[in-house]
Amino acid sequence: MVQFDRDRSKLFWSDQISAVWSGPWSGGGFTPVILVWLKLKSPKILTKRGRCERPLRKPQIENQCICILCLKTGLLTSDPRLRDCVHQMRQSSRDSPGPVMMDQKLFRRCVGNNIMLLTKAFRKKFIIPDFEQLTQHINRMYDNAQQQEAGQVADYIPQLAKFSPDLWGVSLCTIDGQRHSVGDTKVPFCLQSCVKPLEYAIALHEFGSEHVHQFVGKEPSGFKFNKLSLNDEDKPHNPMVNAGAIVLSSLIKVMEFLKSLAGSEYVGFSNATFQSERDTGDRNYAIGYYLKEKKCFPDTADMTAALDFYFQLCSIEVTCESGSVIAATLANGGICPITGERVLSAEAVRNTLSLMHSCGMYDFSGQFAFHVGLPAKSGVSGAVLLVVPNVMGIMCWSPPLDRLGNSVRGIHFCQELVSHFNFHNYDNLRHFTKKHDPRNRSDEDSVTDALSSTGHRSVVSC
Amino acid sequence: MVQFDRDRSKLFWSDQISAVWSGPWSGGGFTPVILVWLKLKSPKILTKRGRCERPLRKPQIENQCICILCLKTGLLTSDPRLRDCVHQMRQSSRDSPGPVMMDQKLFRRCVGNNIMLLTKAFRKKFIIPDFEQLTQHINRMYDNAQQQEAGQVADYIPQLAKFSPDLWGVSLCTIDGQRHSVGDTKVPFCLQSCVKPLEYAIALHEFGSEHVHQFVGKEPSGFKFNKLSLNDEDKPHNPMVNAGAIVLSSLIKVMEFLKSLAGSEYVGFSNATFQSERDTGDRNYAIGYYLKEKKCFPDTADMTAALDFYFQLCSIEVTCESGSVIAATLANGGICPITGERVLSAEAVRNTLSLMHSCGMYDFSGQFAFHVGLPAKSGVSGAVLLVVPNVMGIMCWSPPLDRLGNSVRGIHFCQELVSHFNFHNYDNLRHFTKKHDPRNRSDEDSVTDALSSTGHRSVVSC
Amino acid sequence: MVQFDRDRSKLFWSDQISAVWSGPWSGGGFTPVILVWLKLKSPKILTKRGRCERPLRKPQIENQCICILCLKTGLLTSDPRLRDCVHQMRQSSRDSPGPVMMDQKLFRRCVGNNIMLLTKAFRKKFIIPDFEQLTQHINRMYDNAQQQEAGQVADYIPQLAKFSPDLWGVSLCTIDGQRHSVGDTKVPFCLQSCVKPLEYAIALHEFGSEHVHQFVGKEPSGFKFNKLSLNDEDKPHNPMVNAGAIVLSSLIKVMEFLKSLAGSEYVGFSNATFQSERDTGDRNYAIGYYLKEKKCFPDTADMTAALDFYFQLCSIEVTCESGSVIAATLANGGICPITGERVLSAEAVRNTLSLMHSCGMYDFSGQFAFHVGLPAKSGVSGAVLLVVPNVMGIMCWSPPLDRLGNSVRGIHFCQELVSHFNFHNYDNLRHFTKKHDPRNRSDEDSVTDALSSTGHRSVVSC
Amino acid sequence: MVQFDRDRSKLFWSDQISAVWSGPWSGGGFTPVILVWLKLKSPKILTKRGRCERPLRKPQIENQCICILCLKTGLLTSDPRLRDCVHQMRQSSRDSPGPVMMDQKLFRRCVGNNIMLLTKAFRKKFIIPDFEQLTQHINRMYDNAQQQEAGQVADYIPQLAKFSPDLWGVSLCTIDGQRHSVGDTKVPFCLQSCVKPLEYAIALHEFGSEHVHQFVGKEPSGFKFNKLSLNDEDKPHNPMVNAGAIVLSSLIKVMEFLKSLAGSEYVGFSNATFQSERDTGDRNYAIGYYLKEKKCFPDTADMTAALDFYFQLCSIEVTCESGSVIAATLANGGICPITGERVLSAEAVRNTLSLMHSCGMYDFSGQFAFHVGLPAKSGVSGAVLLVVPNVMGIMCWSPPLDRLGNSVRGIHFCQELVSHFNFHNYDNLRHFTKKHDPRNRSDEDSVTDALSSTGHRSVVSC
Repeated sequence: MVQFDRDRSKLFWSDQISAVWSGPWSGGGFTPVILVWLKLKSPKILTKRGRCERPLRKPQIENQCICILCLKTGLLTSDPRLRDCVHQMRQSSRDSPGPVMMDQKLFRRCVGNNIMLLTKAFRKKFIIPDFEQLTQHINRMYDNAQQQEAGQVADYIPQLAKFSPDLWGVSLCTIDGQRHSVGDTKVPFCLQSCVKPLEYAIALHEFGSEHVHQFVGKEPSGFKFNKLSLNDEDKPHNPMVNAGAIVLSSLIKVMEFLKSLAGSEYVGFSNATFQSERDTGDRNYAIGYYLKEKKCFPDTADMTAALDFYFQLCSIEVTCESGSVIAATLANGGICPITGERVLSAEAVRNTLSLMHSCGMYDFSGQFAFHVGLPAKSGVSGAVLLVVPNVMGIMCWSPPLDRLGNSVRGIHFCQELVSHFNFHNYDNLRHFTKKHDPRNRSDEDSVTDALSSTGHRSVVSC
Repeated sequence: MVQFDRDRSKLFWSDQISAVWSGPWSGGGFTPVILVWLKLKSPKILTKRGRCERPLRKPQIENQCICILCLKTGLLTSDPRLRDCVHQMRQSSRDSPGPVMMDQKLFRRCVGNNIMLLTKAFRKKFIIPDFEQLTQHINRMYDNAQQQEAGQVADYIPQLAKFSPDLWGVSLCTIDGQRHSVGDTKVPFCLQSCVKPLEYAIALHEFGSEHVHQFVGKEPSGFKFNKLSLNDEDKPHNPMVNAGAIVLSSLIKVMEFLKSLAGSEYVGFSNATFQSERDTGDRNYAIGYYLKEKKCFPDTADMTAALDFYFQLCSIEVTCESGSVIAATLANGGICPITGERVLSAEAVRNTLSLMHSCGMYDFSGQFAFHVGLPAKSGVSGAVLLVVPNVMGIMCWSPPLDRLGNSVRGIHFCQELVSHFNFHNYDNLRHFTKKHDPRNRSDEDSVTDALSSTGHRSVVSC
Repeated sequence: MVQFDRDRSKLFWSDQISAVWSGPWSGGGFTPVILVWLKLKSPKILTKRGRCERPLRKPQIENQCICILCLKTGLLTSDPRLRDCVHQMRQSSRDSPGPVMMDQKLFRRCVGNNIMLLTKAFRKKFIIPDFEQLTQHINRMYDNAQQQEAGQVADYIPQLAKFSPDLWGVSLCTIDGQRHSVGDTKVPFCLQSCVKPLEYAIALHEFGSEHVHQFVGKEPSGFKFNKLSLNDEDKPHNPMVNAGAIVLSSLIKVMEFLKSLAGSEYVGFSNATFQSERDTGDRNYAIGYYLKEKKCFPDTADMTAALDFYFQLCSIEVTCESGSVIAATLANGGICPITGERVLSAEAVRNTLSLMHSCGMYDFSGQFAFHVGLPAKSGVSGAVLLVVPNVMGIMCWSPPLDRLGNSVRGIHFCQELVSHFNFHNYDNLRHFTKKHDPRNRSDEDSVTDALSSTGHRSVVSC
Repeated sequence: MVQFDRDRSKLFWSDQISAVWSGPWSGGGFTPVILVWLKLKSPKILTKRGRCERPLRKPQIENQCICILCLKTGLLTSDPRLRDCVHQMRQSSRDSPGPVMMDQKLFRRCVGNNIMLLTKAFRKKFIIPDFEQLTQHINRMYDNAQQQEAGQVADYIPQLAKFSPDLWGVSLCTIDGQRHSVGDTKVPFCLQSCVKPLEYAIALHEFGSEHVHQFVGKEPSGFKFNKLSLNDEDKPHNPMVNAGAIVLSSLIKVMEFLKSLAGSEYVGFSNATFQSERDTGDRNYAIGYYLKEKKCFPDTADMTAALDFYFQLCSIEVTCESGSVIAATLANGGICPITGERVLSAEAVRNTLSLMHSCGMYDFSGQFAFHVGLPAKSGVSGAVLLVVPNVMGIMCWSPPLDRLGNSVRGIHFCQELVSHFNFHNYDNLRHFTKKHDPRNRSDEDSVTDALSSTGHRSVVSC
């Protein structure tokens, strides 16, 4: 049996191979295990990092061999793309009275349609080839940010105030569906303003840029003290301010989109928050009436309904984990990495990222664009939805906010992320060698090469 | 002789092969000619686009062969990297009484140190593999923009007003030094505000971001009507507004940098403009005194000297051609594509591009960032310095300005460029297939393959 | 009989003196008739302007004499102060089968308690001694303003839009209760914003300046484009803007005050306007919610109730006539001129006039303060409530508004008024002789003197 | 001899009447002494307050009598209107070897042309009848304000910083030329911004309102943070801000006007301040260049000359005493109270007072207009020029400034002045009885009546 101790990343080997499936495979957690079936002259078990650990014992392997290749690829067994594979393995182990003897036939059945994905993982062709190294960096940044004790938990409604200031979670999901989570990443929290770019993206997707921008502008508002007022054309400055989001909320249906964006991971709804938001939403009612007076809504829209819907949007719950998939869908140009579904048009995503880039972090937006240089959106719940285009989506969450309303730990994490990796919008220039690019493959790091050293070429010819 | 008719891109063949070098090679203009020496069984001349045109005549070629491979690679014979090559060819043709017989030895001498560059060109490994196609698109966009008849030539000083509204030029330079120019690209004009990002980049390069941002902010100013005032910290909002540029002008020496940025191409100085600017610079004097009053200058700086220097900076002249090299140096992370010299640190370039992205186009900056999504800076002379990071730099120039002070044709060109190519900051997302990516190689388009079809493999093994 | 033809201001004489009372005295209109009882040696009837017209006929007068002295004093027979007098006269004429023979006894009974008022009128001691001349000027200004055809009737609710743009009325009431009306002065219209200074004055009167200014500021707002926002202390800028008036509306009960301010003249309520205001009051709901969010209301106040009350206040109706009494009460330091009742404290009036002076005419306030120099308040109904402190109150009304929301004719009238009379706040400087001061008595203009010329000294010794 | 002890306001009587003229009369200080010549049956000396003190001794008076009536009228012996009178008296006492025997002839010669003024004083017909009582109040307010220790002396130029924070003076001058000074009222200080209303008034006087307001607006600027910017019409907001004053300084010649405004009292010039202002006037140079760029100056004006002239204007020196005469000239509608010269047109004064009312106290203007309700202008030297229209002018001066740039003691004094006297613009409403009106005559307070009680009627029939 091959066991993966999730906490210590160690690998064990035993005879009861069937136990593999009832162990780490069953949960929703991360797993580094990838099945590989090889014709090995001298059978060996290849551990994580693609290195040979010790010879496989005779009975299980004989002339043929099952290789449980442990790679920290970042794939989850709960990944929908692996559903068939995992299902077949479980089936096999359930059907078999003793240890499962994996032969080429069983391997083919298990791997089946996932051969492309598994090959990509195997060949380290994922966007982050050395995912384990990335997670180590992320974990270190997580720890550093955790030291940040400043900030206040928003308290204008009880549902926000009840969260402990110690809560702190980061999840990421790459455009290849590699996943990593650290901290309180399974605790639901409300999207709040983080829903704004999603709402905007959905509106763009449904109605197109031209129609949507009949109702909202596309520039930073600039005016610190005048959040209520509209731009020169009597439109809200952009869809990232309340006024813009309220107007757009009259346009769209959002829930099914969010589910798809999150690859069917957790998207909930906090009715208590919704009620509280509505009860204390004086500012938003002010904005709503002002917008109505200025005829900012589409003709058919009902302002009160739009406001209600806006409050509902703010009260939609995600976890860091599901939120990171949403962010990854944006990073991936509108296609959910773990389902492969195109949820949003690329154009909708482009415009959304443009405005997240310039207007997503309240009055810190300018500074953030300069220093972090990535599209992001923060919410009063302490959430920061961060997109590294073509690489990954990240959801940070920690309730304590700085005076501008951004999560203290979230901002800290984002800044450290970019100071280490070349993720800044203009970092990725040629000849900019100071920073680490996790997209780079170090040659000796490839499994293929590792196997090549054993003299075998056609790795996945099976 | 192979002649390249620059206007019509046609190619002729004649016996006087020596005439090649005294023809298109001698000027600074574009040339599509690349030397290739091949062992051909049945000698043929390969024309541009790598296709065989007709058999080469016997006497010149015999068993061995010189192939004048005509590729629209975008390299100029004036490219400093080809200096030796061009020199050797001219030398050969001058030394020889009759037609030059190019043999392997002569070829080696000519190509010499440029083998890497020529190989890259030959293998279509430049950032824009099919450069000819790009130039066709650019020319079409140029023509379209030329139809735009709106706008007013700035007239606050005679030196600006004297320019014809019909002037219109576009030059581009890729990060591999591929060049294309169309229109009035050899007419000098003043950089005016286009010098601001350069000034900022130089200041960053010389003093580092921390020092520079003691004196200027890093966010869009937002305030349309209040260009004179400072941000909350009594600093100019950013280095792209006059106030910011004036303060920074007290920091740096710029001329040698500009020369290097332009790869030693034309960088001049209009004394008449400088005098006029100084005589009519009431607004800038106002800003200067205001900054002095607010103690915005470094302690050692003299305000009047800084202003004078600022006026000088604005009066620096470039052409579209040299300006495009400057832009390309920014696109290339601070290394001049045609000299290979690192002029600016990558960090300086990164920050400069960040602020050009958000603040470069006056009050149109927000719209430009949304729709074009590229770092750019415009000047009152009608110049638009556009950077496509990791791809190319472009200098557009046409004096008529719209009401926000941007070149009408320049804006039009930038918008059309991005609507065709996937150059928008967030266009380059995976799965965004609508637009054309000129960086892609269409496989059959490679010279190697073209030659392969004739059965020869080791093309540049000589 | 003495008849006063109201249209032509002519006076007729007949034997049926009883008809006097059933004629012009019966209505609420203006009358120039003042009773004077004289011992005349050679009885004469003195007409308006105190000049003798022709000898009284014998039978009615004999040795004693009733003199119907016709003075354009501006007093109305409907003046509450003359109630007893008029009542007695009517009684007499009703009780008497034939012509009433007025003797000293009857005269005393009629005049009774009004001797002070009548003496003041008789001696030309009213603030405007030559009232007829004033009315001529006013009528001329009225005519001039009527030529102004510009402006648009407010149409945001049907109740405002239904008014004809031709409506135009001016009423004035001096601090001595002298009255003059010209045009459509009996048509009810809504106070709209004109209620704001009254609301503020009442709040000051009831709660004192210190308490009231915990909730509103006391300075012009300045900001043209930011009517919603609050001042540095998060209070509405002043009580003359909607936000200020809405907050104050949570403080007070206003109707009984308005009745008193208007000396019991017409104060009504337009329920239709109220409903419409409430239905279309998006901007005010916006303000209300914003104020609530900013905790601008007193702790016990209910925002929705305050808004409702505010809409009710705006829907209170007056006529020019009753409105002029309200204005006169302010001009008179808080004491209603025609009832003598102190309605508001002098301090409340002082502060109200101060803010009307600086903030009463929307964005025209600064210009108005400079050119007219009088406290005033305009409303969207086309009303302009104008106060000439210590002289008179004026209500102008004409629905067409200029682009700043002030009545075109109202503004025109106010400007002409001040260009003719020395009513500007700083007109009344010594040695400023250019303008006419209607408060001046021309000596020969006094009735006393007129009578003196007939040789009688002790005019009202009876 | 009659001596007036200036400190204790006591009056002594002696035989050497000639000493009177060489005593208190000789200086420029205040004197309460008024000459009255009476035919007294039983000669008495009437002391200050018009009350009889004790019988005059026989030899000096005999049948006829010279009465030295001591009234605290506020007239100074240095008053130009008393020049002849004082001169004659001195002449008499110089010509006479022994005590001067004043007879009717001498009295007539002394009083001569001043009979009107002296009669007015004698009859208590000055605007402040009981001047002594007023001075007591003023002195008390002076003492109270002196307790205010807060504020900072302006230090941007050494000439301002050198003044002790303890300096504190108040002078007043009524429209009848009654004078009172307390504290450091003879120390010269620069007008600084206090010159602005004077400059504006002179410009109005010279060129008329229409011409002047082609260059400056007439409304409060409102904008706290944007002093440099212009109003919607690209004019400085009003003549009370630097920009407005700089533009107007290109129009006028001011010195002779100031001399006349001050009735030839001290008007000096601080060259050191001028030089310092010019050297440190960065902000004003900024404004100047900005105005020039916006073409705010008259066509013929030279910006640098205008700025120089502006700095000169700011460096003009007055004392509290001379400043109070300037203020009194404004209070008196443009006629200098002590010379009788019309210096400014009434219209110029009206407009000037209007704008001082709304814009004179920097960002405190709105509060000041509300609470004090009087036209005033403050300067960075600690000066506050206060005008009580038709009553008096006051110059307060104390260098320590509050954070808005107004003199701490000056503001305190103005507020206390208005809380005691009914000087607020809207205090003077009828029926506003709470406050003291120093213009009121208490009947028994008149000298005439005082004398009448001795049985003499025709007081000044001589």
